Amino acid sequence: MRGSPAETEVREEAAPFAFPHETVVTWQAPPLRLGADSTRDIGHELRQLGVRSVLLVTDANLARLGLPDRVRGLIEREDIEVSVFDQAEIEPTDQGCEEAARKLAGREVGGYVAVGGGSSIDTAKMLNLLGSFPGTDLRRYLNKPIGDGLAIPGPLKPLVAVPTTAGSGSECTAMVALGVAGMRLKTGISDLRLRPSAAIVDPLNTLTMPPAVTAASGYDVLTHACESYTARAYDHRRPYASPGTRPIYVGANPISDMWAEQALLLIGRYLRRAVFNPLDLEARTGMSQAATFAGMGFGNAGTHIPHASGYPIAGMVTGYRPRDYTVDHAFVPHGESVIATAPAAFEFTYAASPRRHLRAAELLGASVSGVTARNGADLLPQTLLDLITDTGGPRGIAGFGYAHKDIADLVAGAMKQQRLLACCPRDVGPEQLTRIFEASLTG
Amino acid sequence: MRGSPAETEVREEAAPFAFPHETVVTWQAPPLRLGADSTRDIGHELRQLGVRSVLLVTDANLARLGLPDRVRGLIEREDIEVSVFDQAEIEPTDQGCEEAARKLAGREVGGYVAVGGGSSIDTAKMLNLLGSFPGTDLRRYLNKPIGDGLAIPGPLKPLVAVPTTAGSGSECTAMVALGVAGMRLKTGISDLRLRPSAAIVDPLNTLTMPPAVTAASGYDVLTHACESYTARAYDHRRPYASPGTRPIYVGANPISDMWAEQALLLIGRYLRRAVFNPLDLEARTGMSQAATFAGMGFGNAGTHIPHASGYPIAGMVTGYRPRDYTVDHAFVPHGESVIATAPAAFEFTYAASPRRHLRAAELLGASVSGVTARNGADLLPQTLLDLITDTGGPRGIAGFGYAHKDIADLVAGAMKQQRLLACCPRDVGPEQLTRIFEASLTG
Ligand SMILES: [Fe+2]
Ligand SMILES: [Fe+2]
Repeated sequence: MRGSPAETEVREEAAPFAFPHETVVTWQAPPLRLGADSTRDIGHELRQLGVRSVLLVTDANLARLGLPDRVRGLIEREDIEVSVFDQAEIEPTDQGCEEAARKLAGREVGGYVAVGGGSSIDTAKMLNLLGSFPGTDLRRYLNKPIGDGLAIPGPLKPLVAVPTTAGSGSECTAMVALGVAGMRLKTGISDLRLRPSAAIVDPLNTLTMPPAVTAASGYDVLTHACESYTARAYDHRRPYASPGTRPIYVGANPISDMWAEQALLLIGRYLRRAVFNPLDLEARTGMSQAATFAGMGFGNAGTHIPHASGYPIAGMVTGYRPRDYTVDHAFVPHGESVIATAPAAFEFTYAASPRRHLRAAELLGASVSGVTARNGADLLPQTLLDLITDTGGPRGIAGFGYAHKDIADLVAGAMKQQRLLACCPRDVGPEQLTRIFEASLTG
Repeated sequence: MRGSPAETEVREEAAPFAFPHETVVTWQAPPLRLGADSTRDIGHELRQLGVRSVLLVTDANLARLGLPDRVRGLIEREDIEVSVFDQAEIEPTDQGCEEAARKLAGREVGGYVAVGGGSSIDTAKMLNLLGSFPGTDLRRYLNKPIGDGLAIPGPLKPLVAVPTTAGSGSECTAMVALGVAGMRLKTGISDLRLRPSAAIVDPLNTLTMPPAVTAASGYDVLTHACESYTARAYDHRRPYASPGTRPIYVGANPISDMWAEQALLLIGRYLRRAVFNPLDLEARTGMSQAATFAGMGFGNAGTHIPHASGYPIAGMVTGYRPRDYTVDHAFVPHGESVIATAPAAFEFTYAASPRRHLRAAELLGASVSGVTARNGADLLPQTLLDLITDTGGPRGIAGFGYAHKDIADLVAGAMKQQRLLACCPRDVGPEQLTRIFEASLTG
């Protein structure tokens, strides 16, 4: 979505004032339904959307636990037909989504319901896209330079997201994260048409998440909030040539700041509790709000270094098997992949906005007594490390099997995420990323 | 939208847990475009909505100042046809809207653009409704008991709101305020279908507002934020029988609280500055954000006593002519009508949530040093009175021409706003309202 150089020139049409920098914030979000047992309203939500048949997208693990069956019953009670696809991959790829779409071809549905983590929600978004506009390879929609950044040509069908992990925020955002088959890398598709039609955020649906999954999902929320809060601000950019060239990720702004601050406060209060005691409903409620609130922020503001680095970390792994995940291949959970470089990344970005970095640490529960802009560069990194340590997370990328020799490849992979790096508050190139990966080897 | 007694019974279907109180928050908002010169994007916004022709609704005063002409040009540049209705009344009534709709009948448009204050935006909402579903009297849609609370039977056409007053928040909300012809009272229509499709919040469009209009609009924002922040919380209510009986105004909740707090902070910083120096763009930016942010909150949470009381205050006035408004009849600006009882109302509601009342005062700039829950009942009322005095606002309803003898009628009028009074954190009846009106005579 980043403009080419020609697109970032000052707009030509006469304005009442000529601003040397961008002045406009764009922001949008789906209708939300939050709270214990809000799942019960799913049939009503679909009827309001005028949907008479849906494909319910979920994963095999959740299907075994029974929630998709309950959701199916709730929808059928409203006389809406339900068919189920319960084979969402834990890390969806373009190829996997295309194969699933081929299997499902011919099944006419009026809408989609996603029940699961970011992977199921993203898979539902892709099945909606492929079902609505068959014949175009997903790769063409992927962000440049990996794909062509093709715009989705028309409206998709209604999609209601029911997140179960308190993590990705995909229930709010207009993007998906996808592995690229055969390329050992991940990237995304960003398009306003991918934003779900409604989100149902029910903390009861997160109670069955095991501790390591709770922690990894929480790290995702944590980085979303920290990255969007420290992202290059919307008004620290040159004006866009036209509204059509404005990216979805406009940078930190008064609206995304509010959501990020609230998410950080909730994470500081509730992440440890949710990991230590899975049945702590107050903590689950706080974390499910935090995940959605962070999504309401970063989904419009953007993320930067930790997410850009997380993509190659997840994409190139060959030997790591995380706790509490049921997968039969090497795999770094998205949340672990993004938190691993976060302490070093925020040490690097500190100089761009000390006040914001200190405030983020304070909201997470750190004491700022005696801390000044001059001596505080370490506060947010240390606050993150404490939280990671307390919740059993990765202290660095060595734990995933990476060593010095891999860093050049990781840097090259991160450099492909230009859409994200454009949101970094300091200019960042291979040299800076190399230092950040080196510093992130052992935390 | 409040349920009848039968509707507020505990839901019958088996839930995984049976909660004795409501647990669900619903929240929604239009896409926003905020910032200096965001108006320039209006043609793009309409094209994204697929609109090829619009009716631009505005008032005669603004039309003279020239903004509607500029907006028209910006839209036409995108090859979208524009026709203009510049006779929005400053206090729209059901009859006035119906007459306007009759005059406009036959003019086929694909969408609506409102340029103006709450009155123009509400008029555009009504013309959209009457144009989409001709043949039904507006009165049938009005909130009970004044109207029938009829639901709008289907989707309306796209409406883009361009507020110019930093006041009503109508660019975000799913309601309108309407005078009822021949009844000397005002009420509203609440229906999710009335929510605008997009809001363009451009502080440059507020620079021409005269000081008294700036102040009155600011009081509206101030009461929206204070009332929604102190409203009966979403989980201090009995469960709704079904999702269809859930009101739009669900009460204070974690999302509306966030918006209200941010609005209060901005009002405390910028309202005086915007009144004293109309060209202070930073203050205008802050107040235009405050108005929209307050709308994002109260539009889902609700308001209570000051708004319920403001309707009869505005509806029954016979002799008041406010400064800086160009009207040819007696009239209390909405913002003045709602702020007049606010100090007494918040003294009454204090006991329900001292912490929130004190926090609201603090966000507005009051010192809470030495203030405790026991001695703080006066802090928010006094903070409001100071702000009103500094900005030349009404110290009480005697200034509008009301005396002791009118209070019974005012109370009867306020009692008709049951949808709003249901959001009051303490039970409120004629006795309590009488005391509040008495205390509000001279401030
Ligand atoms: Fe993420
Ligand atoms: Fe109001």
